[in-house]
Amino acid sequence: MGGGFFSIKFSGGPKLCLPVSRSIDMETDILDLRQSGLEYFFNPRSIAVIGASANFAKPSGRPIAALLKKGYVGAIYPVNPRYTEIGGLPCYPSIGAVPGPIDLAVVAVPLEGTLDALRQCAEKRVKAAVVFTSGFAEVGAEGRALQQQIAELARRNGMRILGPNCLGLVYFRNSVMATFSDIVEMENEAPGSLAFVTQSGAYGEKTFMQAAQEGVGFSSFISVGNEADLQFTDFISYLLGDERTSLLGVYLEGAKDGANFRRVAEAALRAGKPILVKKVGRTKAGARAAASHTASLAGNDRIYDAFFRQTGIIRIEELRDLTSFALAFQSGRMPQGRNVGILTDSGGPGVEMADRCEEFDLLVPELTGRTRAQLEACLPFFGSARNPVDMTAAVMTDQALYGKCLRAIFADENIDMVVAPGFFMAYVSPMLLGDVLEIYRSSTKPLVMCPVWADKSPQAREMIARVKQEGIPIIPESSDAARAMASLAWYGEKRRQAAVGLREETGTPVEAVNAVARMLQSPGALTEYEGKQILAAYGIPITREEMASSAEEAAALARQIGYPVALKVQSPGIPHKTEVGGIRLNLYTDAQVHEAYAEILRNAKAHAPQAMIAGVLVQEMIEGGVEVIVGTTHDPVFGPCVMFGLGGIFVEVLRDVSFRVAPLARPDAEEMIREVKGYRVLEGVRGRPPADVRALVGVILKLSRLAVDFAGEIEELDINPLIVLPRGVRVADVLILKRR
Amino acid sequence: MGGGFFSIKFSGGPKLCLPVSRSIDMETDILDLRQSGLEYFFNPRSIAVIGASANFAKPSGRPIAALLKKGYVGAIYPVNPRYTEIGGLPCYPSIGAVPGPIDLAVVAVPLEGTLDALRQCAEKRVKAAVVFTSGFAEVGAEGRALQQQIAELARRNGMRILGPNCLGLVYFRNSVMATFSDIVEMENEAPGSLAFVTQSGAYGEKTFMQAAQEGVGFSSFISVGNEADLQFTDFISYLLGDERTSLLGVYLEGAKDGANFRRVAEAALRAGKPILVKKVGRTKAGARAAASHTASLAGNDRIYDAFFRQTGIIRIEELRDLTSFALAFQSGRMPQGRNVGILTDSGGPGVEMADRCEEFDLLVPELTGRTRAQLEACLPFFGSARNPVDMTAAVMTDQALYGKCLRAIFADENIDMVVAPGFFMAYVSPMLLGDVLEIYRSSTKPLVMCPVWADKSPQAREMIARVKQEGIPIIPESSDAARAMASLAWYGEKRRQAAVGLREETGTPVEAVNAVARMLQSPGALTEYEGKQILAAYGIPITREEMASSAEEAAALARQIGYPVALKVQSPGIPHKTEVGGIRLNLYTDAQVHEAYAEILRNAKAHAPQAMIAGVLVQEMIEGGVEVIVGTTHDPVFGPCVMFGLGGIFVEVLRDVSFRVAPLARPDAEEMIREVKGYRVLEGVRGRPPADVRALVGVILKLSRLAVDFAGEIEELDINPLIVLPRGVRVADVLILKRR
Repeated sequence: MGGGFFSIKFSGGPKLCLPVSRSIDMETDILDLRQSGLEYFFNPRSIAVIGASANFAKPSGRPIAALLKKGYVGAIYPVNPRYTEIGGLPCYPSIGAVPGPIDLAVVAVPLEGTLDALRQCAEKRVKAAVVFTSGFAEVGAEGRALQQQIAELARRNGMRILGPNCLGLVYFRNSVMATFSDIVEMENEAPGSLAFVTQSGAYGEKTFMQAAQEGVGFSSFISVGNEADLQFTDFISYLLGDERTSLLGVYLEGAKDGANFRRVAEAALRAGKPILVKKVGRTKAGARAAASHTASLAGNDRIYDAFFRQTGIIRIEELRDLTSFALAFQSGRMPQGRNVGILTDSGGPGVEMADRCEEFDLLVPELTGRTRAQLEACLPFFGSARNPVDMTAAVMTDQALYGKCLRAIFADENIDMVVAPGFFMAYVSPMLLGDVLEIYRSSTKPLVMCPVWADKSPQAREMIARVKQEGIPIIPESSDAARAMASLAWYGEKRRQAAVGLREETGTPVEAVNAVARMLQSPGALTEYEGKQILAAYGIPITREEMASSAEEAAALARQIGYPVALKVQSPGIPHKTEVGGIRLNLYTDAQVHEAYAEILRNAKAHAPQAMIAGVLVQEMIEGGVEVIVGTTHDPVFGPCVMFGLGGIFVEVLRDVSFRVAPLARPDAEEMIREVKGYRVLEGVRGRPPADVRALVGVILKLSRLAVDFAGEIEELDINPLIVLPRGVRVADVLILKRR
Repeated sequence: MGGGFFSIKFSGGPKLCLPVSRSIDMETDILDLRQSGLEYFFNPRSIAVIGASANFAKPSGRPIAALLKKGYVGAIYPVNPRYTEIGGLPCYPSIGAVPGPIDLAVVAVPLEGTLDALRQCAEKRVKAAVVFTSGFAEVGAEGRALQQQIAELARRNGMRILGPNCLGLVYFRNSVMATFSDIVEMENEAPGSLAFVTQSGAYGEKTFMQAAQEGVGFSSFISVGNEADLQFTDFISYLLGDERTSLLGVYLEGAKDGANFRRVAEAALRAGKPILVKKVGRTKAGARAAASHTASLAGNDRIYDAFFRQTGIIRIEELRDLTSFALAFQSGRMPQGRNVGILTDSGGPGVEMADRCEEFDLLVPELTGRTRAQLEACLPFFGSARNPVDMTAAVMTDQALYGKCLRAIFADENIDMVVAPGFFMAYVSPMLLGDVLEIYRSSTKPLVMCPVWADKSPQAREMIARVKQEGIPIIPESSDAARAMASLAWYGEKRRQAAVGLREETGTPVEAVNAVARMLQSPGALTEYEGKQILAAYGIPITREEMASSAEEAAALARQIGYPVALKVQSPGIPHKTEVGGIRLNLYTDAQVHEAYAEILRNAKAHAPQAMIAGVLVQEMIEGGVEVIVGTTHDPVFGPCVMFGLGGIFVEVLRDVSFRVAPLARPDAEEMIREVKGYRVLEGVRGRPPADVRALVGVILKLSRLAVDFAGEIEELDINPLIVLPRGVRVADVLILKRR
């Protein structure tokens, strides 16, 4: 098909040339188009509406009305035995009776007729179908079974299905209106850019409409419903190749396939198309409601959060976060760092904006001496040439001031972007605005205007239109502006990180993999000793230690290892040794070892009489260092995930831990360490030396590799504690649980 | 004057009856009206505009234009030698030439003429003046001196001054338009309720206008400028007695007088008039900018935060927080608890709202069995009768459903308020709305509607108007709605707390006060021993301990106190004993005491050769318990403040502490303990018994009393650690720094 146009000959219709709106980056791992069949949703040569109604207010009537109104150029086939004509188009009694081939079928029939309609579609070799009908997996077991049949039908016939229980799909470029949403009523005044994919029909629809109303240009809307066949990730994947789409919004209740989501998210990051996700089901009450509402498996929210950070997905809280990010992104300018210059005409808004910027981890640095000198030369004596730069109300009489200040700040090498709160339209003359736009064009740095108030005069409207025309985002509330710019800066950093190369190739030697595989094959639970051997095979440093099967042997080993030592009972039946009195620390002499050995065995026998004792571990004691916990867990959606936290109260009381989805790249490991609130402990507090964070990063990366290599075998793994020394690290204890 | 009207006879004017808009609660500590003179700003019988311009676009022309347009009924006197007439009114060449008495003067003259104009005002016995002019304290030392002269002039002549450097004052009730703000252009469609007092002219003005535009009814706007004479608290105090004002918004850069702010805030809480404060200068960059911008002393933001929590002030982050709270509050309904019932027609918005409610510490509880049965009887099988209640799109065809569900949820005893996201106007018939309004009237619980989308049809507009007419708040974004209702619930709790009685009367015995006064009088720094004696005088439990001046005496005391003991060097010159090796813990024998005594003195001499040694403290060792820090500090704005935190890393690494401004009430002490993130440690972790929080509360209250009683003497006080045992508490060490 090449990259240009392809010709379609319709039976009885005009010859059409539809542009191919996709350009595919062969380096991404997007599925092959032909195979996925998604192009028939976005570029159909013909659309049939099954169960079409002549009442255009009904869901089954709206698609026909919208296709006609928006000027869809392909063939439109209403199908309904009750009509012979709808909206001037011949209406066919059955799918089979449609004269030409059908690329896309919109199924708007009652629940009981759905499966039959889809069977007829399959016979007619329909390429793609949108199913509006609800009453499937969302209502219980019976519906789930019916939905399963639909999914199988799709797979068997290579027919792709969107839905059921969805609002359908809109693709403005080709006027595809396969929906009964109010969206068809909208005028797309600023075409392009935002595609929105939603798991909640109603909420997604309203979000989309609101954003559009606030000036965000959009390209497509897809309500994925129950995802019987196609999932939201399939549509994102497709749209990454759509040149009309430059960013994606997603309303997410839960992903089913974390690995696929990751592939798509990483491809999006490489392609430079930001994904903004509104994820619901965050809190307890929320999660409960989601479980009763959707057919999705809601994964752990912390894991989602980690996943988003890791893959460059921007998590939004509010609709307005989508809107303001989209406005900032659509300007086409990316900040090259986090340094904000603030230009204001009033102290209050300047202070306010500085507060907000720092709240969202942007920086409001000092300006260079040169810039300050330039500013001082033109500002009144009661203005401020420091950042935030305050022109004061003097700008109302000396309008050239605005341009002079803006130019100076743009030119400052310490500044990556300019945010201008308090640009009151009331005093702005068209000439001043012309100046500002010219200065904007002469720079490549982003500028955001945050008018605290804009009057409604025709003059003000006209000026706002000119600013928007130039692509300069106007974001009234300071927190919205600061958040959007912070997200943009963060996204830029993620992009640069991705460009450097995402994955850490630790390259586990094949012998290590084989050795661990053997250890994990043995039946029963693993002891600490076995767990440490597994870690050691992956190059993770463990304590010096040996197994003893008698007190004498223990004492001999202790001398060999060097006093002081610890003794720990080893038994597959005793995963938590402390609780049974199975550990004795700080033993300094042979006598103490003898005594401890006896006591440990006595305790073990008393508390776990059935447990088979593999022996007693004699282990060196590690002096000093910071105790941390590193572990892995198996998330139902995302698979193996790695956790990091500081030991003691940080985990137990504050739950101060961070997660990442495996495999991790080095920056992920570094970020997850810095992310915990207690991070400063690793830098050294109370006069202690800093801990070896680099070695800790190494452990996390190796653990990530282990978790991926044995995703099928390891359910859960806790290194607790891992002792991070001033130089190096040591695993002091580990618990590995196998998957069943 | 009574509570009704008072008559005014103007020379040459008609006899007027102005309503007295104030009703004063004699139990509040509001200043006497006559004394404060603020009534002349709000209820002036005449207004002169000094430096009036015939150009109504200029700041000096706008007040005349606005007074005329809005129909101010008193006398208006333009004063300017350049005109004989302005807007049909005779214009006078000088203030002295004005024929009648002047209650309020608006001073709109250039900087150099300001002081002279005010002097003339004083001669004319003008009661109150608004000074627009800028160039005073905000620009430096010279301006500060000029401002000082203004303040003295005001005080000497009993003339009250608003400003300088302000936008002035608007009071809608009496059409007082003593301002050059755009606010005079606004139509007050929903009169009443919100008064806004701002330290930032421009920002406050825009905030006010935006809120008004979003449907918040307002009563007054006051821009306080540099507060040379009257401060923002004076206006709040006055407005607490204004029956037209039911809530107050404040834009705050910094308070000068914390004690006065507290009196006003407590009076507002008792009066049931919420104060919402937008405080800027929160972060580092913000604070720096505030320092260079205003003449205010910006206090520590943490102290402000504590002060707000304590006094029932609602801190807002965004303009929209003001708007949504005002809308919710103006409904006149207060939630009696934190339990939210959510009613929705779509799963997504329901889940979203539940998330938001929990985020803001509201609860989304299970409904009672009875309610669920009622709901199940009317909901479709795929709906949800659990909270959030999901009617699904079935409500579009069965409109009676909405009323049935709402009635059932309102009736549920577990529910304090109903939040209804997703009330899409598109399907709502006027009849359904009538039902809903009737059900609303039959309940006393708050209801908030959160339409995710409202179409723009005339029918929808009409229905929105009916909802608003009823006083039901419409707040589109779920987070805004949840935050507003959470603030309202919190405010209700604070009100109930205040009603129970705010202050804890610990009633320090006079002997204790005298004893402490004596101890604080002695010259030089205090030792730990003296500090503990001060605490003990206030009934705060300290460790058993005695001073020794020889090793033999120390050993004898140790036996008497009981082993193990600690030895600590006591010297006014050694505030931090650990750093000089001046402490030895866990001494079990006479020999150890002898040895430790010698070592401590040796160390003290080596590290602090000049320090005078008062002796060595022999102190019992306390076993177990949780170590916490309790202290006081002297804030420049709020005076003595009390701090609480858990010991060790909680303070050192996490800065996990809470503050309250002294004096504290019992609930304050309880809240500040629960507020720290590590609170769970006090409840007992790792199998430890819970700590005696009640005794801890007692210490905090006594310390608060001490800090207040000796606010002039104590600069800083740290009890570190205070050991909180399963029963009781014990001060293990204390450091008291005196004020200079």
